[in-house]
Amino acid sequence: MAGSTFGNLFRITTWGESHGPALGVVVDGCPAGLSLDEEDIQMYLDRRKPGRSRITTSRSEADRVEILSGVFEGRATGSPISLLIKNTSQISRDYSDIASCYRPGHADYTFDQKYGFRDYRGGGRSSGRETAGRVAAGAIACKILRQLGIEVRAYTRSIGPVAIDPQRFDFQAILETRTAMPDREADDRAVAYMEDAIKRLDSVGGVMECQVTGVPAGIGDPVFCKLDALLAQAVLSIGAVKAVEIGDGTSVSARYGSENNDAFRMRDGHVVKVTNHAGGILGGISDGGDILLRAHVKPTPSIYAPQQTVDSSGHDVDIQIKGRHDPVIVPRAVVVLECMTAITLLDAMMANLCCRMDSLERFYKK
Amino acid sequence: MAGSTFGNLFRITTWGESHGPALGVVVDGCPAGLSLDEEDIQMYLDRRKPGRSRITTSRSEADRVEILSGVFEGRATGSPISLLIKNTSQISRDYSDIASCYRPGHADYTFDQKYGFRDYRGGGRSSGRETAGRVAAGAIACKILRQLGIEVRAYTRSIGPVAIDPQRFDFQAILETRTAMPDREADDRAVAYMEDAIKRLDSVGGVMECQVTGVPAGIGDPVFCKLDALLAQAVLSIGAVKAVEIGDGTSVSARYGSENNDAFRMRDGHVVKVTNHAGGILGGISDGGDILLRAHVKPTPSIYAPQQTVDSSGHDVDIQIKGRHDPVIVPRAVVVLECMTAITLLDAMMANLCCRMDSLERFYKK
Amino acid sequence: MAGSTFGNLFRITTWGESHGPALGVVVDGCPAGLSLDEEDIQMYLDRRKPGRSRITTSRSEADRVEILSGVFEGRATGSPISLLIKNTSQISRDYSDIASCYRPGHADYTFDQKYGFRDYRGGGRSSGRETAGRVAAGAIACKILRQLGIEVRAYTRSIGPVAIDPQRFDFQAILETRTAMPDREADDRAVAYMEDAIKRLDSVGGVMECQVTGVPAGIGDPVFCKLDALLAQAVLSIGAVKAVEIGDGTSVSARYGSENNDAFRMRDGHVVKVTNHAGGILGGISDGGDILLRAHVKPTPSIYAPQQTVDSSGHDVDIQIKGRHDPVIVPRAVVVLECMTAITLLDAMMANLCCRMDSLERFYKK
Amino acid sequence: MAGSTFGNLFRITTWGESHGPALGVVVDGCPAGLSLDEEDIQMYLDRRKPGRSRITTSRSEADRVEILSGVFEGRATGSPISLLIKNTSQISRDYSDIASCYRPGHADYTFDQKYGFRDYRGGGRSSGRETAGRVAAGAIACKILRQLGIEVRAYTRSIGPVAIDPQRFDFQAILETRTAMPDREADDRAVAYMEDAIKRLDSVGGVMECQVTGVPAGIGDPVFCKLDALLAQAVLSIGAVKAVEIGDGTSVSARYGSENNDAFRMRDGHVVKVTNHAGGILGGISDGGDILLRAHVKPTPSIYAPQQTVDSSGHDVDIQIKGRHDPVIVPRAVVVLECMTAITLLDAMMANLCCRMDSLERFYKK
Repeated sequence: MAGSTFGNLFRITTWGESHGPALGVVVDGCPAGLSLDEEDIQMYLDRRKPGRSRITTSRSEADRVEILSGVFEGRATGSPISLLIKNTSQISRDYSDIASCYRPGHADYTFDQKYGFRDYRGGGRSSGRETAGRVAAGAIACKILRQLGIEVRAYTRSIGPVAIDPQRFDFQAILETRTAMPDREADDRAVAYMEDAIKRLDSVGGVMECQVTGVPAGIGDPVFCKLDALLAQAVLSIGAVKAVEIGDGTSVSARYGSENNDAFRMRDGHVVKVTNHAGGILGGISDGGDILLRAHVKPTPSIYAPQQTVDSSGHDVDIQIKGRHDPVIVPRAVVVLECMTAITLLDAMMANLCCRMDSLERFYKK
Repeated sequence: MAGSTFGNLFRITTWGESHGPALGVVVDGCPAGLSLDEEDIQMYLDRRKPGRSRITTSRSEADRVEILSGVFEGRATGSPISLLIKNTSQISRDYSDIASCYRPGHADYTFDQKYGFRDYRGGGRSSGRETAGRVAAGAIACKILRQLGIEVRAYTRSIGPVAIDPQRFDFQAILETRTAMPDREADDRAVAYMEDAIKRLDSVGGVMECQVTGVPAGIGDPVFCKLDALLAQAVLSIGAVKAVEIGDGTSVSARYGSENNDAFRMRDGHVVKVTNHAGGILGGISDGGDILLRAHVKPTPSIYAPQQTVDSSGHDVDIQIKGRHDPVIVPRAVVVLECMTAITLLDAMMANLCCRMDSLERFYKK
Repeated sequence: MAGSTFGNLFRITTWGESHGPALGVVVDGCPAGLSLDEEDIQMYLDRRKPGRSRITTSRSEADRVEILSGVFEGRATGSPISLLIKNTSQISRDYSDIASCYRPGHADYTFDQKYGFRDYRGGGRSSGRETAGRVAAGAIACKILRQLGIEVRAYTRSIGPVAIDPQRFDFQAILETRTAMPDREADDRAVAYMEDAIKRLDSVGGVMECQVTGVPAGIGDPVFCKLDALLAQAVLSIGAVKAVEIGDGTSVSARYGSENNDAFRMRDGHVVKVTNHAGGILGGISDGGDILLRAHVKPTPSIYAPQQTVDSSGHDVDIQIKGRHDPVIVPRAVVVLECMTAITLLDAMMANLCCRMDSLERFYKK
Repeated sequence: MAGSTFGNLFRITTWGESHGPALGVVVDGCPAGLSLDEEDIQMYLDRRKPGRSRITTSRSEADRVEILSGVFEGRATGSPISLLIKNTSQISRDYSDIASCYRPGHADYTFDQKYGFRDYRGGGRSSGRETAGRVAAGAIACKILRQLGIEVRAYTRSIGPVAIDPQRFDFQAILETRTAMPDREADDRAVAYMEDAIKRLDSVGGVMECQVTGVPAGIGDPVFCKLDALLAQAVLSIGAVKAVEIGDGTSVSARYGSENNDAFRMRDGHVVKVTNHAGGILGGISDGGDILLRAHVKPTPSIYAPQQTVDSSGHDVDIQIKGRHDPVIVPRAVVVLECMTAITLLDAMMANLCCRMDSLERFYKK
């Protein structure tokens, strides 16, 4: 399947390469009447923008979004919203180092195997810049969800061995720390860890976490479109993610059932779960608790240290990667995780509208 | 979206509940000419069949598959293949214990919230029996892949704290041990661990692993239909799975790039990766190495010990679950993981056929 | 794409061949809570059942439907509904006349070209019996629509040169005449016309019409999922249909705009159209008027007269078709048209639920 | 479903309104390696460009296409191709005549009913300008098909009562006549007919025809994805089309089977059909003959004569439409028909690649 479209009812189609004239996304199915302007989207794009500190690439992109369709007099019309972000900082450098040889950990080899050749400038379509379109679309999804009382928030949970301390959790810090950690102390230590890696021409990995509050119970479909299954696709579609966990994730496999089940209780006339090991999803359907998921991100594959590889003519070669790149992917990917989570959830909420006869009757019966 | 369909070109639609007259699947897009009979499918169903030992439910289902369409004179015709499995061992017991109250860790509450009511007999559609259809369809996908030189093999990697020892890895053991572990010693210890849990009216979790050999490079699409993203959806759509890892998975987040990148080298005229931390997928596209993934499975939520919950009238109650259920899900889910992996991979291989102009020309140019 | 699935939110997957053990359909996305039993479906199947008169095939099928899943205590649960219809009257006759040669007007040649071989018994998957699954699914869609105040009614408009007279239109007659015409006089003349054709070992064609009343304005999406575009796919997916018209259809091409536009006027506080040349759809979206469409059906390709053709070894041969078949397709296809129209409309109505921000807020805002 | 995406493997997503800053399309799934530049696309856009004669709108758009992604060094990379066409001639006129009242025959009323409001400038998304994106995408599909030996050609068959004469059929004339008729004499008479209508402030309709040569047998899927069913959706998704015919279309309903069946014969070692009443499709699958289809187009709903309508406050009003519009839609829609036909056929050809086991083996078996 043509792989640049995601979602069914709220459906996004991204396009663009690292070094082409522009990148963008078409958002189809945005509900009519949503108040929307470029600033709503720009604030999300600014969170993934490079160039804020030593720990991101030195490439500096304005990443200004333009709305080309689907909005009239400040409101979404229901027609597809086309969002355009011009590439302004592509440097026409010499790509001979990577044009004909395969960077380890990158998609160079696999693109060549699949398509017969590739746009090697800056990674082409496999560049992290591809996520700009996702973030622009996700900003819209986040705005819609917020109006429905749902808040999606992602942050850095750990970088290398440096993890946040839940006791120091500070949401405000996410937008202010260099690592997008909600813990200023951990941020300092993580930056020190990264700077050490940079000195050694190396890169580091990390873990992102996303929390969604205010989700009504009942979202997601049993079997193949379980909410957690769709979220897993969304999260693993972000480059460099190698594992996803829902709720307590990997730790459940070593537990007893009596430890892992979340008991239900009545509180003020509402059903609540006493614990939330499940991460807000039971049987693939939201249970009214907070949704919690984590994504494990590999170290940036581009490192300045020399590496062994082969070239497209079939010779062993050594490669030393030049150019600009982030020594860690996580801080700028956090907003991508947030956006993909929002898009997935919103699409599932839309699909949920027609699952009961009484909903149909409420809408259509005269 | 109607959530019981998976795949695009090789597309399966499952149906059926635990206590209805039958379960089944429609497989649409099976390539014409494939030699196929019921035995090809039955051998996979037998692997998920309950009743083989103390560590599975005492419910005993013959799980005989019938082919109702799409096969003529021993070969698939290209028309949809409808597979039927009759439920023969539904016990019409008293369900008053679960009809009106919500079992912790189960989908009872979320189904009621979504649909307004539910088929409470044996979990209805959210029962593990739903996977019979997936396995029947997956048997076909596995057979096709095998003819293309691709072998998909899943097994139990750990149960509770008891993990297999890679030094003792024995593929033959998968089909023979009670836990589906490829390590007979670990199997003994895992069974002892489970029996202890059973005595304490508790249940246990575990980890499944799946290995795919012979995959050509180039399968999967960049961006949203990355092969690993599709696999993640497939795997997390299996009930009770709470995390999925590709290749080295969660461990990559604490590594340096220099440790995690897989170097390329030429070997006998072929490109090989010296290591396979990536699990056979780079940039969402298969790289020619073995695909490796893991699924973390929570302990069976049904336990015999009493638990706190609420009923559908909004009262706190205690529940003690009766009936038949597995104290651990993993051993019978291993074949489901294998089948979902095969279906996903085959569908992606089909989509890959049209991604190059030279392939189209090879097919169609006169 | 695997071609046996239709619809997105109300999604049907049909399977089965003329001479296999059974045919059926899986209906996924049926809204939970719908009261449903086998009789609701049987009454639609009975309308397409053969054997009611000389003008239908002498094959006599009970066409009894069984509900295998998705209904609990008389109500749809929201899980897929699997419907099974056993083939009971397949005659194991000698197929040597058609096994190796291609019946003109049939899909024998094209199936062989596509798949390399075919199930030649009674046309296999390309048999009109395939529509039994559509009708079973459509019966559910019709029931849902009726509860929303929408009535879908198809009938025979003409057979050969014999057309109904709008002055004599009598809905009751549809279910009682041999031709499914809503005009008993025309029915008599049409039967005479067909009987004459039968005598000459020939077959005849005709036109079906479908009228939908009570459709709210606003259904259908601009651009590719226009309601009329989706209906056109649905209608032309019925075997033997060669043309579809919406509203005044082909006659609009010879008109002036001043003749063809439907003026709007206020009547009792509601917007109405003074005429309905458009057939209830403007810009791909329902306008609140009755939807009207027509399908032109070719004569049954199976005729008893000898015909020129070729065999699969590449020789010119003459063929004389034996076996049982209808001399006209229309009377039994009318209910198929009705069902496909209902399924398409319902699916579009479901998709429409999420197109406005105020609808989402009505549902989800606390 | 979000309705601006069409196709599965060759998938297009259009966006843009009549009076926004730009329109465009994202083409996902274009086979890698296709040689492609802007001129390939521009020559198709130029065919739908307004302003060539009195019989098209006086709005004059350059309609220059820009390729923003997916092409590298003159070849498609397999990544989505984003095509942008700037609107340069939107006149900011006074829209008070149509902002609050509903033009008969247009989508004003239905958009308001669906979305609650609309972009009224020039028809917004429902404007014929929406088709620019389709044509840009279709130009790519046509180029691919041509390389596979397949030629898609659409033309005007009739305007009002003036039809082409098959004896005078001249393909070259399509691109040269004002009406896109392949018959210069008919063109003269059609222009006279239209000019008379223009004088009377009226508009006219017509019929378009599309012919596809070189199609291999075997394309299309039985049941819901019949090639003719998909073509019907494609064709009726073009605004103002009210009927579609395949092959002999509506005329088949009045025929006998013996007249309508196409006999097969061997010619030079190939199977051919002696006639082609079926229009190249049997049982929903291409039969190797030319594909032939027709679309009936209503008269332009915008006419200068006064019309009765209502306004959004619920009052009867008279409307007199100002602004620029074509008195007939057909001549500029011909290239849209050609493009939609090409996109549909190409997508079906791609899906066909995986329908046989021997095709999969040819590709993947080592």
